Amino acid sequence: MSEKKLAIIATKGSLDWAYPPFILASTAAALGYQVQVFFTFYGLQLLKKKLDLQVTSLGNTGMPMPVSMPVLMQALPGMQSMMTMMMKRKMKAKGVVGIEELRGLCLEAEVKMIACQMTVDLFDMPPKDFIDGVEYGGAATFFEFAGESDICLFV
Amino acid sequence: MSEKKLAIIATKGSLDWAYPPFILASTAAALGYQVQVFFTFYGLQLLKKKLDLQVTSLGNTGMPMPVSMPVLMQALPGMQSMMTMMMKRKMKAKGVVGIEELRGLCLEAEVKMIACQMTVDLFDMPPKDFIDGVEYGGAATFFEFAGESDICLFV
Amino acid sequence: MSEKKLAIIATKGSLDWAYPPFILASTAAALGYQVQVFFTFYGLQLLKKKLDLQVTSLGNTGMPMPVSMPVLMQALPGMQSMMTMMMKRKMKAKGVVGIEELRGLCLEAEVKMIACQMTVDLFDMPPKDFIDGVEYGGAATFFEFAGESDICLFV
Repeated sequence: MSEKKLAIIATKGSLDWAYPPFILASTAAALGYQVQVFFTFYGLQLLKKKLDLQVTSLGNTGMPMPVSMPVLMQALPGMQSMMTMMMKRKMKAKGVVGIEELRGLCLEAEVKMIACQMTVDLFDMPPKDFIDGVEYGGAATFFEFAGESDICLFV
Repeated sequence: MSEKKLAIIATKGSLDWAYPPFILASTAAALGYQVQVFFTFYGLQLLKKKLDLQVTSLGNTGMPMPVSMPVLMQALPGMQSMMTMMMKRKMKAKGVVGIEELRGLCLEAEVKMIACQMTVDLFDMPPKDFIDGVEYGGAATFFEFAGESDICLFV
Repeated sequence: MSEKKLAIIATKGSLDWAYPPFILASTAAALGYQVQVFFTFYGLQLLKKKLDLQVTSLGNTGMPMPVSMPVLMQALPGMQSMMTMMMKRKMKAKGVVGIEELRGLCLEAEVKMIACQMTVDLFDMPPKDFIDGVEYGGAATFFEFAGESDICLFV
């Protein structure tokens, strides 16, 4: 029987939305799937050597924050960093692996990471800012794999 | 011919984004699909007995609200509740089924609902807050079904 | 060998999130895929003759804006339009095709566009506001195609 394939399009660049692609990719790889992740739009932030991801509670009413805050307060300067810090502390206390470590696990498990060339060009993102092992390609390249995948997710 | 399968990963916890997973799941079940929904991250809010979902217009410029408001006003205290109330009233007037009813339809149609154990642990969510009939599992459990699905969606 | 099929559910109505469905649809069509896009919820904004899409940086911490701004400033009246204008200018300078042009390419490539009847009714959206060539249908109609698709994405 041939290997199962998982294709992910990672488009979000905040701390909370950084987890799903890396958790799904590493879990699938551990289960023997062949995995490719195409990082595009805001998702390219997840490939940076120096990650600076923030939690955004705005637009997520369902978020069980350690401390609840009215919407207006969430928009105050400094509040986003405070929520990010609290979230990181909570995750650490609970033993949740950080994004960098999770990303490393994906690379070790041979998850193929592709940076969207068009977005890289659009925002003049220097390739030296990205981690090693990243490949560059367009949507057409990605369809070669996605078209044969068992699961394809837009995250 | 074997039954078609639909797998959904439900990750959002606001009133507006609560509709897609339940509408897709109930429609597919009515068409004879076998359906599993994996609730994770903010999506776990959708499994609570006592739903307290809010509309978030922030970040949705395309939202045709009953009354249009500038971005800053939307961040004022009380405004989110007001928009939520207006949205609910509009939906009721139009005969749109509420989330609780839609969720009930899914359960009746034997849609399998799985709560992400990792997120439940991370946010210390007490299982007694969730509706009956929910199962608990991790991403690996979900892949067993998703890997054989005809459609798999990350919502 | 039969044609590959791509099914997309387009649910977002902002300028930044208008790109993914149209880029994916037009790329797949160019590669010989048969493509159907189901526009629902805020995604219906993408079918309007007169597009008035805005960038929403709120909730996208990863967005490399031409000028960076604290969260609170982003909520100020006029700021959203300013960011939208800057984004459009940048895209134009970089030779990125506009949404209207991209949408036209999709129609030329025979991408089938379906407007969600339920959402249209809910928000009393007049069909005359939509571009020509749009069909109307429900989730059930869409599943006929999606259930046979090689790739199905919820965008």
